[in-house]
Amino acid sequence: MPRPLNPEVRSRLLSIGRDVVLERGFNGCGVADITEAAGVPKGSFYNYFDSKEAFAVEILEAYWQSIEDRHGPILYDARVKPLVRIGRFFRAITGDHEENGFVLGCLIGNLSLELSNCSEDTRQRLSSLMERWEAALTACLQEAQQRGEFPRGKQAAEVAAILVEAYEGALMRGKVEQSGAALERFEKVVIPLLLA
Amino acid sequence: MPRPLNPEVRSRLLSIGRDVVLERGFNGCGVADITEAAGVPKGSFYNYFDSKEAFAVEILEAYWQSIEDRHGPILYDARVKPLVRIGRFFRAITGDHEENGFVLGCLIGNLSLELSNCSEDTRQRLSSLMERWEAALTACLQEAQQRGEFPRGKQAAEVAAILVEAYEGALMRGKVEQSGAALERFEKVVIPLLLA
Repeated sequence: MPRPLNPEVRSRLLSIGRDVVLERGFNGCGVADITEAAGVPKGSFYNYFDSKEAFAVEILEAYWQSIEDRHGPILYDARVKPLVRIGRFFRAITGDHEENGFVLGCLIGNLSLELSNCSEDTRQRLSSLMERWEAALTACLQEAQQRGEFPRGKQAAEVAAILVEAYEGALMRGKVEQSGAALERFEKVVIPLLLA
Repeated sequence: MPRPLNPEVRSRLLSIGRDVVLERGFNGCGVADITEAAGVPKGSFYNYFDSKEAFAVEILEAYWQSIEDRHGPILYDARVKPLVRIGRFFRAITGDHEENGFVLGCLIGNLSLELSNCSEDTRQRLSSLMERWEAALTACLQEAQQRGEFPRGKQAAEVAAILVEAYEGALMRGKVEQSGAALERFEKVVIPLLLA
């Protein structure tokens, strides 16, 4: 008879495991590293997750959900002009990276490059997370278009995609340089150029 | 007595091992996978490289060198306007990625996110490769400034850095989407905006 599952253990594996993967990479850590960090027996991992790949999909979802929960409201604040919200939203995410000196990178970016051509489930989740990120930005840009604050001739979805891609590239550079300089360039040059 | 080293074996380990790491990630493959692919005994790896990290540094150097050798001349072709050369240079790199359906990503980007906070030697090499890439673009932009084809008020080095970062972000997206759409956005929107 399988032991009853403990939601607290599951939640601890997800939150602590996410940090382990963010720090060491998906293939840079084993299931044993994750269970050890979470303080649970190694064997119990597979009671909660079908595979390490299934775990990757869940920590990615939780990672983005945490960004959305904490910073998403910035994008829907009707008191603020939509283009200003976009800048503030990226600034808020950058603030998270600032806290760790920019050395960890973004879990979405990290696993995009590490796993996209090795795990199809992970690749599909990454694709859908980036689409959600993009859709939220697109909605803001379209609102700005309706208010006459962003040219109607521009394709909102295209600009949103470029924002996500350029930001991920800046985070990559930040990780290599262990510095916020690339994020400053993004904020100071890329956002104004794209939103003009 | 150590066996004499064979430069051909070294070169095979570097070129085949580079493909293995590009396909599976640095931690997604072991030294045994690399030696097996290269058809040499596992133990011989350490005759040629002090460590797997030292190997990573060398394949990165060779990867960039191959891009420079094949596409670098585009950037120095005095018959072509400097800003046009920049577009063609990126187009040529994109052509390489097109050949494999965009699924592998750029070795520099991949290892930037996988190894920057785990291997200091690799991080430093990545940093210096990105600086070389940037310096080549900066020189082109400065030439354009001297010819009055790019505003003198813009900081050439800053624009060059953004080009590299936004391009790496587009390659990341291409890997996730297994498509060239992000690279098309880079070519069609990002380059013209940054070089205007």
